[in-house]
Amino acid sequence: MTRKSNLLIVAGCVVSIAAIQQPDPPLRGFTAESSRIQRDWETRFRAMPDPARIREMLRLLSARPIHLGSPYQKANAERLRDSLRAWGWQAELEEYSVLFPTPKERVLEMVAPTRFVARIDEPTLREDVSTAQKSEQLPTYNSYSGEGDVTAPLVYVNYGTPADYDELEKRGISVRGAIVIARYGGSWRGIKPKVAYERGAVGCLIYSDPKDDGFAQGEVYPAGPWRPKDGVQRGSVMDMPVHPGDPLTPNIGSTKDAKRLDMKDAATIMKIPVMPISYADAQPMLAAMTGPVAPEAWRGGLPITYRIGPGAARVRLKLAFNWNQTPLYNVIAKIPGSTWPDEWVMRGNHMDGWVNGAADPLSGLVAELEEARALGALLKQGWRPKRTIVYMAWDGEEHGLIGSTEWAEHHASELQAKAVMYVNTDGNGRGYLNAEGSHYLENLVNAVAREIPDPQTRGTVWKRWQAAVIARGDARAKTEARGARADLRIGALGSGSDYTPFIQHLGIPTLNMGFGGEGGGGVYHSIYDTFEWYTRYADTSFVYGRALAQTVGTIIMRVASAEVLPFQFDQLVETARGYAGELKALRDGEAAKIAEVNRMHDEGVYAATTDPLNPLQPPKREALAPVLEFSMVDNALDSLQRASQRYERAKAAAVAQNLANVALNALNGLLSKADQEMLLADGLPKRPWFKHSLYAPGLYTGYGVKTMPGVREAIDNHDWQTANVQLGKVAGALEKEAMMVSRAAALLERRSIVP
Amino acid sequence: MTRKSNLLIVAGCVVSIAAIQQPDPPLRGFTAESSRIQRDWETRFRAMPDPARIREMLRLLSARPIHLGSPYQKANAERLRDSLRAWGWQAELEEYSVLFPTPKERVLEMVAPTRFVARIDEPTLREDVSTAQKSEQLPTYNSYSGEGDVTAPLVYVNYGTPADYDELEKRGISVRGAIVIARYGGSWRGIKPKVAYERGAVGCLIYSDPKDDGFAQGEVYPAGPWRPKDGVQRGSVMDMPVHPGDPLTPNIGSTKDAKRLDMKDAATIMKIPVMPISYADAQPMLAAMTGPVAPEAWRGGLPITYRIGPGAARVRLKLAFNWNQTPLYNVIAKIPGSTWPDEWVMRGNHMDGWVNGAADPLSGLVAELEEARALGALLKQGWRPKRTIVYMAWDGEEHGLIGSTEWAEHHASELQAKAVMYVNTDGNGRGYLNAEGSHYLENLVNAVAREIPDPQTRGTVWKRWQAAVIARGDARAKTEARGARADLRIGALGSGSDYTPFIQHLGIPTLNMGFGGEGGGGVYHSIYDTFEWYTRYADTSFVYGRALAQTVGTIIMRVASAEVLPFQFDQLVETARGYAGELKALRDGEAAKIAEVNRMHDEGVYAATTDPLNPLQPPKREALAPVLEFSMVDNALDSLQRASQRYERAKAAAVAQNLANVALNALNGLLSKADQEMLLADGLPKRPWFKHSLYAPGLYTGYGVKTMPGVREAIDNHDWQTANVQLGKVAGALEKEAMMVSRAAALLERRSIVP
Repeated sequence: MTRKSNLLIVAGCVVSIAAIQQPDPPLRGFTAESSRIQRDWETRFRAMPDPARIREMLRLLSARPIHLGSPYQKANAERLRDSLRAWGWQAELEEYSVLFPTPKERVLEMVAPTRFVARIDEPTLREDVSTAQKSEQLPTYNSYSGEGDVTAPLVYVNYGTPADYDELEKRGISVRGAIVIARYGGSWRGIKPKVAYERGAVGCLIYSDPKDDGFAQGEVYPAGPWRPKDGVQRGSVMDMPVHPGDPLTPNIGSTKDAKRLDMKDAATIMKIPVMPISYADAQPMLAAMTGPVAPEAWRGGLPITYRIGPGAARVRLKLAFNWNQTPLYNVIAKIPGSTWPDEWVMRGNHMDGWVNGAADPLSGLVAELEEARALGALLKQGWRPKRTIVYMAWDGEEHGLIGSTEWAEHHASELQAKAVMYVNTDGNGRGYLNAEGSHYLENLVNAVAREIPDPQTRGTVWKRWQAAVIARGDARAKTEARGARADLRIGALGSGSDYTPFIQHLGIPTLNMGFGGEGGGGVYHSIYDTFEWYTRYADTSFVYGRALAQTVGTIIMRVASAEVLPFQFDQLVETARGYAGELKALRDGEAAKIAEVNRMHDEGVYAATTDPLNPLQPPKREALAPVLEFSMVDNALDSLQRASQRYERAKAAAVAQNLANVALNALNGLLSKADQEMLLADGLPKRPWFKHSLYAPGLYTGYGVKTMPGVREAIDNHDWQTANVQLGKVAGALEKEAMMVSRAAALLERRSIVP
Repeated sequence: MTRKSNLLIVAGCVVSIAAIQQPDPPLRGFTAESSRIQRDWETRFRAMPDPARIREMLRLLSARPIHLGSPYQKANAERLRDSLRAWGWQAELEEYSVLFPTPKERVLEMVAPTRFVARIDEPTLREDVSTAQKSEQLPTYNSYSGEGDVTAPLVYVNYGTPADYDELEKRGISVRGAIVIARYGGSWRGIKPKVAYERGAVGCLIYSDPKDDGFAQGEVYPAGPWRPKDGVQRGSVMDMPVHPGDPLTPNIGSTKDAKRLDMKDAATIMKIPVMPISYADAQPMLAAMTGPVAPEAWRGGLPITYRIGPGAARVRLKLAFNWNQTPLYNVIAKIPGSTWPDEWVMRGNHMDGWVNGAADPLSGLVAELEEARALGALLKQGWRPKRTIVYMAWDGEEHGLIGSTEWAEHHASELQAKAVMYVNTDGNGRGYLNAEGSHYLENLVNAVAREIPDPQTRGTVWKRWQAAVIARGDARAKTEARGARADLRIGALGSGSDYTPFIQHLGIPTLNMGFGGEGGGGVYHSIYDTFEWYTRYADTSFVYGRALAQTVGTIIMRVASAEVLPFQFDQLVETARGYAGELKALRDGEAAKIAEVNRMHDEGVYAATTDPLNPLQPPKREALAPVLEFSMVDNALDSLQRASQRYERAKAAAVAQNLANVALNALNGLLSKADQEMLLADGLPKRPWFKHSLYAPGLYTGYGVKTMPGVREAIDNHDWQTANVQLGKVAGALEKEAMMVSRAAALLERRSIVP
């Protein structure tokens, strides 16, 4: 080794020491002093989560089927309550009584051109003992399906989205009086029977195609992680984009004595019988179909010619259910806040599964429990959060976010007064952090992710997240991730887990988080989602379970003790401006499409390009699209941007004075309404339960988010008048948000005026 | 009926009559007077082709297998010669002797993990008697495969393109010592064993995957038009992108006494054994494979998990051939020109098929024959073409464009002196006109297509072509087709039929034409390509056979009698400028890719985004791409543009004077060299036989065209030095073209100077 390189190393050391001695800038929402204390507790916290304990808890909780109403779900609820109490929490069960249908009769058979009786049952595997608990498992069905006994020709509708029906229309094919068969994917499952019903179908089958979810993806269970031929994706088909929760008690908690709707008046129970089936059951029926060959994008992985029908294949589907009122048990646990006990920092994961639910939901729940255990241990070391922390485990999520929705509806006014944040998780896996939620929380998520070590690489969870955006993002995303933007973007919330009532109905600041993207498999909502499967194919060493506990626990602790809630509104403004830009482009694109279709009619292009032996109907002529009134939204965004800049200036000045004389109670009270201000009093068109002006699941996509949904869906429908009305409502919501942020800034500024 | 509407009708009539009375503008290359005469003959010609005669001729010619060397192919050749003579043509057979391998031994079996002996035979169908001629059919094989007896593990390589091997490399998988199995598609078949050999494989299987060519597309033959499970796509794997024709006689005609290479020195015979198989034979072998799951884009339609290997599956492939010198018979027929007998207007279609060849090639050949019959009838009515018309039927096309190539090489100097155009067709179908070729012929093709009625719609063939571009083209194509450009674009020629020796070796003005795009099927190169299949599923009423005869016959007649060859060079300039633009974009894209890969290495993005349980190798770092010297080509294009403008001005003036005193002989002599001027003396890198600077089949894509191929393939290879050298060569070729066009303009201008 030469002197020169020695010198270099010394110089390097000096720099490092200097870097260490330089104090970190204070955490957002903290003063320099409180920040130091907070960092210390967070560091202690992050050393606690233990993969071995997480594994053991998963084994225990997934030992038997845990669906809503099952004995083991109730036992788990009691077990959790007792554990939480033992760890130092105040924990209770909150019970509701909800409408929950289970099958009384299930018949599916093909009656022509040949007879075939579907198996509609998932076989037990010798290699996985958990699959053998036949007597406790829910059979394969779609909860909140309609009842009926129908025999009709089959029509294959691909994913069953509205766009798929456009393809049927081109071919002059109607589903009126037919039973449709759709494959899983392309939209949330409940959309398939809903659209089928609206188009006149009398029944709906949904199957898992092996191309999307079976042998085409890889070896099937137990030889590999993918869906075996008899595997079935159960699932709810409640019309959740209208409202989730108990169909008989919209807007109120389904307590024992709640006023319930008649079942016939329930808006969210599907009107026709719907049945999920395996690809082994689907194949003979699909193979027997006649009619036009399905377009290329519709073809799956079965060794058949996919045809649309209707034709030779006729099917009988008979379904009847027990529509029982069923007790539902949520677990609610609290650590009271030392300073602001009436400000609640909340966190939840559901605890019910379709069968044993090892991946969904328990792999997320066990991370939450490990956080709870660690926070309990911190309490014993003297830690006290300034705000009340509320940890929850939800029942009935699988059937329509029922536990969380009933609880949120039941406690709506208290929650709108007290809740400052809700963080949700669900099943967890191996790979990259995924975060979505209220966009003023983007900086908080980034700040915490920068501190969590990634279990598989040398860097942090944030570094890996950044690398994924650079590797897979589009040009803009790459540039931003490389530093053009300080923080990585989080997604917008649609639906599909228990955050929905909090963000979209109550307007509570919300995040949903989890790891995933590596590995894969096809046991979702089947009897094969077991501890055996999870420990063979998913986060097998539970290091990502630990990472999730570290990430979410740190977020909870930080928000629980921040003097000023760490919200950053410029990220919200910029994101909302992006949505407005997308909507302008969407309108322009639709306008151009309409003009082009009309022009092609005028030019005779459709007539000249149809194959007379396989004629296709051209799209219909339509009135041209007007220019929309985006200026209202643009002006409101400008107001919000000015308010946000004023707020950041005021806050920096106040923090520099250690937040002396700041009315923190009033300030945080304003900030915690950051989503409530953006709610629409009357909710969205056709679904008043959904009140957020920026985020909703799509009425015809299901889980997938539609941002500025009132406007976006109106444009999707070419309903230009509604689009303009909704633009006004979004602008109003953003103006209210701007007013709130201005008030918050004024509160911070007052400090220097009123000493 | 009211008076008013009566009046309108009268007014309409007046306008129509006025339109009729206005004389059409003269045809390009004709004077007003000669144009009138020409139009009259063309109109008479187009009334003659008769679908019933076309059908009957197809039945006759496809009655028995017609491969190179078969008795029925020789009988057909004699039949054609005799028919042409009867119709008034001078017709001869020209015989060559060519190397043509047929199977002596074919063994294919899987030896591990279980034994499976492949069927390698297409079963006869009761529903199609033509399939029953077992004793005359060629077995399933790839002609010009290597010989050998190899046993090795299987590796699945998707389509077997160089890009597919990049995917293998990412996974650290080599094919050295393996037998690869590739599916048909994605490139020309001969590329698959060639790349496999270059990467060290010892054998190659090529199968038809049912996703691309089988049940996934539709009902299989005989129930429908698609490839049945035991159907095999035979085909040549001669390395035609190096040179087509007899492998032992590159550059010269393989006459009986030609000097031949030793087989060991033949560059275009494949080095390893290659065998085409059915999906029924492929399935057990693919299903037995182990190793990583194939990426999504690689998965076909078989009901298995596609895996890459190598692993459990080991295969034995043994092939031996009879390497016989085989007589080959081309039919050459002439109508001598009345004015310029030494200017030849040529037209050909091959007559050999892999088996019965009803669709490929006979559906095109019967249109050519119907033209020949009609032209013969015109002769009897007194019509005389000014130039000599040469109609040809080629033997040996299926095995490497052998008949056309040997004839073109044999008569090279005469052809380069006399040929003014070659028009090729091959199999024909139902739908849209497809035309590709020398771009100064674009206006000619458009002008003729505007006069041919489409058999299925009310408009012309041109109108339907235009509608297809508007319906399916990109934004630029739409705008152009709607009138921003007077003519529709024709494609550039790669390879795959007998035009290759004419355009790419000799530089003769060339077109390739056919109808297609409606219907479909999978009998290509199988025993199922029969009259029975064609008349059930293709151009069943032969109206597109008639349309092809009308289109091509009109083109031949027009060029045969035009005073000035109807070439329009501004369309060439504009097209070549487009190619230069594409190459600039290609260079910029590759440069950006290299820079991005290097940057992602620097940033540690690859390290952070690889899944440690399924690691992928990142792409390699590479030196940054230099800016290339495009200015040479841009300057040459400017020269050519000025020359073209000068030529068009001079020609307009000359035509206005009825071409008085124009040295037409000299002028047309110059124009007929329009492609020869753009040939490169030394040909393309690594393949001197291919001489055109603008058009070639890709060295690693096969049939697909690479425009400005020397430059484009150098950029593809990141060989920047060669790219610059080739830019210079393209520029030189374009400058020569500009000089020729200027000389032609000067000849036209001299008219006014030298009275």
